[in-house]
Amino acid sequence: MTGMRTEEDLLGTLELPANCYWGIHTQRALSNFPISGTPVNPALIKALALVKKACCQANAGLRYLPTDKAEAILAACDDIAAGKPSDAFPVDALQGGAGTSTNMNLNEVIANLAIEKLGGKKGDYRLVHPLDHVNLHQSTNDTYPTAIRIAGIQGLRRLSSSVARLQGAFQDRERAFGEIVTISRTELQEAVPVTLGAEFSAFAEALSRDRWRTYKCEERLRVVNIGGTAVGTGLTAPRDYIFLVIEKLREVTGLGLARGENLMGETAHADTFVEVSGILKAHAANLIKIANDLRLLNFTGEISLPPLQAGSSVMPGKVNPVLMEAAMQAGIKVMANDVIIAETVSRGTWQINEFLPLLSHALLESLHLLDSIDELLAGHILRIVPDRDRCQFHLDRSPMILTALLPFLGYERATELIATFHREKHANVRAFLEVKLGRELVEKLLSPYALTALGYRKETSPPR
Amino acid sequence: MTGMRTEEDLLGTLELPANCYWGIHTQRALSNFPISGTPVNPALIKALALVKKACCQANAGLRYLPTDKAEAILAACDDIAAGKPSDAFPVDALQGGAGTSTNMNLNEVIANLAIEKLGGKKGDYRLVHPLDHVNLHQSTNDTYPTAIRIAGIQGLRRLSSSVARLQGAFQDRERAFGEIVTISRTELQEAVPVTLGAEFSAFAEALSRDRWRTYKCEERLRVVNIGGTAVGTGLTAPRDYIFLVIEKLREVTGLGLARGENLMGETAHADTFVEVSGILKAHAANLIKIANDLRLLNFTGEISLPPLQAGSSVMPGKVNPVLMEAAMQAGIKVMANDVIIAETVSRGTWQINEFLPLLSHALLESLHLLDSIDELLAGHILRIVPDRDRCQFHLDRSPMILTALLPFLGYERATELIATFHREKHANVRAFLEVKLGRELVEKLLSPYALTALGYRKETSPPR
Amino acid sequence: MTGMRTEEDLLGTLELPANCYWGIHTQRALSNFPISGTPVNPALIKALALVKKACCQANAGLRYLPTDKAEAILAACDDIAAGKPSDAFPVDALQGGAGTSTNMNLNEVIANLAIEKLGGKKGDYRLVHPLDHVNLHQSTNDTYPTAIRIAGIQGLRRLSSSVARLQGAFQDRERAFGEIVTISRTELQEAVPVTLGAEFSAFAEALSRDRWRTYKCEERLRVVNIGGTAVGTGLTAPRDYIFLVIEKLREVTGLGLARGENLMGETAHADTFVEVSGILKAHAANLIKIANDLRLLNFTGEISLPPLQAGSSVMPGKVNPVLMEAAMQAGIKVMANDVIIAETVSRGTWQINEFLPLLSHALLESLHLLDSIDELLAGHILRIVPDRDRCQFHLDRSPMILTALLPFLGYERATELIATFHREKHANVRAFLEVKLGRELVEKLLSPYALTALGYRKETSPPR
Amino acid sequence: MTGMRTEEDLLGTLELPANCYWGIHTQRALSNFPISGTPVNPALIKALALVKKACCQANAGLRYLPTDKAEAILAACDDIAAGKPSDAFPVDALQGGAGTSTNMNLNEVIANLAIEKLGGKKGDYRLVHPLDHVNLHQSTNDTYPTAIRIAGIQGLRRLSSSVARLQGAFQDRERAFGEIVTISRTELQEAVPVTLGAEFSAFAEALSRDRWRTYKCEERLRVVNIGGTAVGTGLTAPRDYIFLVIEKLREVTGLGLARGENLMGETAHADTFVEVSGILKAHAANLIKIANDLRLLNFTGEISLPPLQAGSSVMPGKVNPVLMEAAMQAGIKVMANDVIIAETVSRGTWQINEFLPLLSHALLESLHLLDSIDELLAGHILRIVPDRDRCQFHLDRSPMILTALLPFLGYERATELIATFHREKHANVRAFLEVKLGRELVEKLLSPYALTALGYRKETSPPR
Repeated sequence: MTGMRTEEDLLGTLELPANCYWGIHTQRALSNFPISGTPVNPALIKALALVKKACCQANAGLRYLPTDKAEAILAACDDIAAGKPSDAFPVDALQGGAGTSTNMNLNEVIANLAIEKLGGKKGDYRLVHPLDHVNLHQSTNDTYPTAIRIAGIQGLRRLSSSVARLQGAFQDRERAFGEIVTISRTELQEAVPVTLGAEFSAFAEALSRDRWRTYKCEERLRVVNIGGTAVGTGLTAPRDYIFLVIEKLREVTGLGLARGENLMGETAHADTFVEVSGILKAHAANLIKIANDLRLLNFTGEISLPPLQAGSSVMPGKVNPVLMEAAMQAGIKVMANDVIIAETVSRGTWQINEFLPLLSHALLESLHLLDSIDELLAGHILRIVPDRDRCQFHLDRSPMILTALLPFLGYERATELIATFHREKHANVRAFLEVKLGRELVEKLLSPYALTALGYRKETSPPR
Repeated sequence: MTGMRTEEDLLGTLELPANCYWGIHTQRALSNFPISGTPVNPALIKALALVKKACCQANAGLRYLPTDKAEAILAACDDIAAGKPSDAFPVDALQGGAGTSTNMNLNEVIANLAIEKLGGKKGDYRLVHPLDHVNLHQSTNDTYPTAIRIAGIQGLRRLSSSVARLQGAFQDRERAFGEIVTISRTELQEAVPVTLGAEFSAFAEALSRDRWRTYKCEERLRVVNIGGTAVGTGLTAPRDYIFLVIEKLREVTGLGLARGENLMGETAHADTFVEVSGILKAHAANLIKIANDLRLLNFTGEISLPPLQAGSSVMPGKVNPVLMEAAMQAGIKVMANDVIIAETVSRGTWQINEFLPLLSHALLESLHLLDSIDELLAGHILRIVPDRDRCQFHLDRSPMILTALLPFLGYERATELIATFHREKHANVRAFLEVKLGRELVEKLLSPYALTALGYRKETSPPR
Repeated sequence: MTGMRTEEDLLGTLELPANCYWGIHTQRALSNFPISGTPVNPALIKALALVKKACCQANAGLRYLPTDKAEAILAACDDIAAGKPSDAFPVDALQGGAGTSTNMNLNEVIANLAIEKLGGKKGDYRLVHPLDHVNLHQSTNDTYPTAIRIAGIQGLRRLSSSVARLQGAFQDRERAFGEIVTISRTELQEAVPVTLGAEFSAFAEALSRDRWRTYKCEERLRVVNIGGTAVGTGLTAPRDYIFLVIEKLREVTGLGLARGENLMGETAHADTFVEVSGILKAHAANLIKIANDLRLLNFTGEISLPPLQAGSSVMPGKVNPVLMEAAMQAGIKVMANDVIIAETVSRGTWQINEFLPLLSHALLESLHLLDSIDELLAGHILRIVPDRDRCQFHLDRSPMILTALLPFLGYERATELIATFHREKHANVRAFLEVKLGRELVEKLLSPYALTALGYRKETSPPR
Repeated sequence: MTGMRTEEDLLGTLELPANCYWGIHTQRALSNFPISGTPVNPALIKALALVKKACCQANAGLRYLPTDKAEAILAACDDIAAGKPSDAFPVDALQGGAGTSTNMNLNEVIANLAIEKLGGKKGDYRLVHPLDHVNLHQSTNDTYPTAIRIAGIQGLRRLSSSVARLQGAFQDRERAFGEIVTISRTELQEAVPVTLGAEFSAFAEALSRDRWRTYKCEERLRVVNIGGTAVGTGLTAPRDYIFLVIEKLREVTGLGLARGENLMGETAHADTFVEVSGILKAHAANLIKIANDLRLLNFTGEISLPPLQAGSSVMPGKVNPVLMEAAMQAGIKVMANDVIIAETVSRGTWQINEFLPLLSHALLESLHLLDSIDELLAGHILRIVPDRDRCQFHLDRSPMILTALLPFLGYERATELIATFHREKHANVRAFLEVKLGRELVEKLLSPYALTALGYRKETSPPR
């Protein structure tokens, strides 16, 4: 039949469209896993192409592969790493088989691309064979986890610079808001006076921890199990290949990868991903918390978030803090992905983790979501404007500004003043205090300088 | 400029491609939310088109809308419910704004489709206006949650019949395996003798509870808040419309929907989705447990799962239980989605739940995943074959078959026999017992009939 | 040696304090599981005593047990169900063994109590034997899950009435606040005017769903597997006992329990607990949401939560919404327990769920926490006081009150008025509108009646 | 009334038992939070006593406190750090108020202990005042989070050495099992031959990562916010005290603590705990995975876990892997605690995290559970015995041993051999291969040495 070709595997034969880059193993995976409708993350496909490239270089360098085949394979890997052919990787992200289907998808597409480069027709695996040539000295169980780590590191690097940009945005606002005195709040009740700039410096500080975390955690992923083949013993692979392939992989990826000291332990236990995901979750928790704080500050009117879109189809003029809501949802999704990652890791059995396909999908999704939202937030934060009058208004009517005067009044005198304030039904605490204590003192104690300096200097305080 | 048109909203003007079905609100959402890269679930878009249709019918029936506009709107809704135009709903699933962007996307596409049906050009909202006509007497806050419920019920119905098919498959195997006696296991240790059929009947029983749950839980979703507009008070909507629209919605959807008695309570609290997701999670927990049991039975060799694909790129002849692994991963994803749903529900603020976009995405994904995997499993289970010899072999060498004889021996005599068995290093317990107790008795007590009957009949037991 | 006694089991002998009610199996469990430091929940111990009582009654009624032994056993069960001896059940809640240690703890304590009632000395198991008499025709695998269900139903009943009390408290406040008009909020932005009473009716509505859920979900737990023994086939138990024991259990507990139709399915799959926990989680999500709403309303000053304690060791006069924070934490704990329950259920293997000890601990903890917090909240809610002036103040300055006038103005006229309001820098929207539209109309449209009626009546609206 | 004393606070007066070490703030907390029934973790109480001690030393050193009062306070802190009076800290772990009640409980008990040391009567706060003296220059918001970090570090250190012991136990078994060749398994299907020792080395490797993690993660907790008082600005505290107190705290605890550079950021964001809990979760995931692997190896009979207790009340001779089940449950609990920690962190508002009480309870529980279970496992693992014959039997009948011969046969020849093996219905693959390929070669390729060396050496392989 024209337009079709026939391929064969362990289970029998199957007809495929003749112009199809994938082969029978991929085709079976397509009928086996019509589950989520979402294909494997392209970042993982590209990373796996890099792994295949390094393996081919090692095999070629040691003459396990003839030069012409090797060159064709390398060119095919480069194509895939560059994103083409884009429609050749249709296997469902939610696949069984520990990544075998994705590995075979790569092997088959690389083989057929290479065959074409050698002037052959797709499916003529005598020229380049998916298993004997492309997958030579490899197993799904070493190439696939290695590719997840590579895609993970790439994602972490992108994320790391987004976090840095977001931190920078908060620092910019910290400087811009440095002179604005306002009232802080704990447990949703007014607390001591602070500057608005200091509130934003606290956000920046949390993000600086996130930045450090995402930067440091790359090193957790650098240890790979390439060369370990099926279960980490390197069975079926020659030793010189095992030593060379990690060097080639460092070259190909430009990443400081290292082969694990105990490849069986690397292959059997995926705990490293729990640690990495825990770090992403720490960042997500910060994002949720900060986004909620910002929409609450927007609610009190002390800041205005930039308007992004009309907020209601029924209430004229309503504008909502939609990016904060999106950030909170992104954070929640990352927390749910963390559940997936811990689940899949803890459920692995014996020599490998059979649930890496779901794990990798969740991990790469979390990296992508955090990167996207941080980029969006960074631009948004820079456009936040303060409302000085509102800050002043909230501050002046809050009995809590008394706390700033505690060292000079003592707890009991302060409590007394508050009682008087309430008994006499004053509205403006500051005005009240200026009458009781003198304007100069109040002003001094509530100056941005006094409020941001750490503690009070003894010499300025009256004797106890 | 040719090829572009200009639209305006609260925040200013924007240029759009002239042939674009969506309008300015959608366009803003596209730039505001480039986050996950995944668009809103089409099932939700279609359900929202049905809601819009019912609203239009109610408005038209009460003459709040002129007939020609109404007819054009209705036809547009029908188009969308039928899945066209498929590229008109690009807003990211992970959007802020409580669904406003999706609601506006629908309003705008319906308006432009209707305008064309009336012979106008896209963007000429004098003919049909997204807000004044399409969204008349509606709010995102009543149409959007109502659409989620409709899509949810449709998903539950599909799921319900998949669960039924899966239950049927297990019942089929129950019958086929009814005469095969094997050893059961508790805590990964051999326990009392049972039939293989009885093991499969237990799976079927768990699924029958799932079937009942998914069937019953539809009723939780039937109460909708359509007509409540912004916060459930129906403000801005006329009372006769509110009473009519629910009737129209029942007609349009064919579902037994009812308006909530307290629409503010319906609008403010999304707890119902936690309950529904809890039910999906119960099913997911069963699937994970059952899939794991089956791959373990496949490991012991007592059953063979149908081979689906070659299992290894390196180990010849290896075939893995890949569909079981896929099912376990689908179950884990549903459990993670349940986290999302409880999170988003519990984080809602005041009069609405601002996180419905993520909630609905998770809910509809769970429904889809479970439906897909149940369908795949149903076909797979039917093709499971038993290995009678292996069952017999495992049974015969297990000291636990003594338990079946306990009522006739007493605990101490049984313990003694086991001790003897071990001391004398026998390998086959059944053979040993036949020598000690007589073949006839052993055979009778280990017959499929004796093992599946509930308890023993007193008359057959020796006096104590 | 005086003061000690020696017992023996499968693994050898062990010395125990002579006055100790438990025996060797319990003693081994104590050394095997020094893990969490928390003993098994007393509610489970008591429920298991009821199960043991019913089993003994069935055995005695059918003459499997002599009357004197049976009477002593029944009296011992009554003691335990009444909470004594309180120090006899020390096994860690986090135990392996699928509940065997707790079952044996009960068997041993019952035996020794019964022995004493018969005049014997502890440890003289010839009089009453933990296994041969107390545990007769039972297995951990049927008695223990049955006891969990009984304790679960008892917990659900207590919870159900606490939820009812809490709902009642909100309804009380609904009535008290019925005439207070205030501004609602969506997405942390002001939305349409509502009454404060209506806000509280929404809380009550959410709780009415919780009440219905907790009430209905009892029926999920009524199906028990008592009589199924080790794996649900009832092996080693006589059929007449199996039929009688469920009747006795109904009598002893006063609950409408039923034996499952497929006891193997009941024994192997613990999915029902996921469903029940999902319902507790729905309630928890409501509590978290409502508690957060209330502390936010307390923050805006529209209500005052009752002061419970001084809020700060440093800020004089600070009072925090501490019960709301406690309620949120209780809700979060219930959500974490739900994770435990789904985890343990999905990880069960083959014929039983080996993780029931942790599951039951989490389930009973959730029931207890929700019951406690609902009781506390019910009293607290009743003491909430509104601040009418603050409500009025927030309402009057909100442009959103225009929405109430939309049907009479149209969207564009409304937008225009808002623009004017902002351009002319008015502060009080209501005053502004009274000037523009007449006081009478504004007052009518913002009356509690107009705002709580569902939609507007057509006759009152001007022609469009 | 004799036997009672009266105390007063912001909300009024209260009667307390005269001999009670706590005061009115604690008493209010007792009536406010009868929720979980579990008191605050003693490890946190003790750590907070150390913080109080350091604060007192700093205050005394700078003459903010008179020497006699200071000495009495210090002695009281030492008492509490030593665990007495053990019944003076009854406040519920599930408390609102961000830890204020626990802080006040400490302040009051320290004050009353100090009063007694000075010869006074409890409640005579003129001698030593809970707030003015004990809590001087402190806030709940700096002392309480600092104490959580200290208790956390102490827990991490204990855990770190338990992990080390467990790793050592696996390494011991690695050496003991080094010569035993067995079959590995991936995806619950037989894979390539390995040594049993190598399987245990993989467990040890995973634990070595856990050990590194728990060791390294201490540094995350070393940054504390002591001196920051209410919101991190140090308001109400003199600067010299702030600089001195951290030094005193280092001395008192013996830990390398440092004051955060941005105390507002430290006080407002609790993300560090998410990171630490993520690391505990990685360990928990390893434990669950390893415990499950071990019970599966025990199931295949290749190893025997030490018997700990009789496994069944009905099946004679049954012994279950109960410690593995306990370990899995401990791991699941840690995973649920991780949910609590991320939840509470992400829900904090503005300047502090109001949910630290639940967070700290979960964190300290996780540390304790992991420490307990690791200790138990370490002893247990050392007593695992292998079954060489079973390993050999499983190996010899597995076609997968062919994989070890792949480099010498090629994939196609290997596939052919398997086909022959199956077609001719051989049972023992090794015997079959010895006939086909020669005994010497087979033996060499399946030697422990060949299987544990990484890859094969080229010179030993035939030319391709």
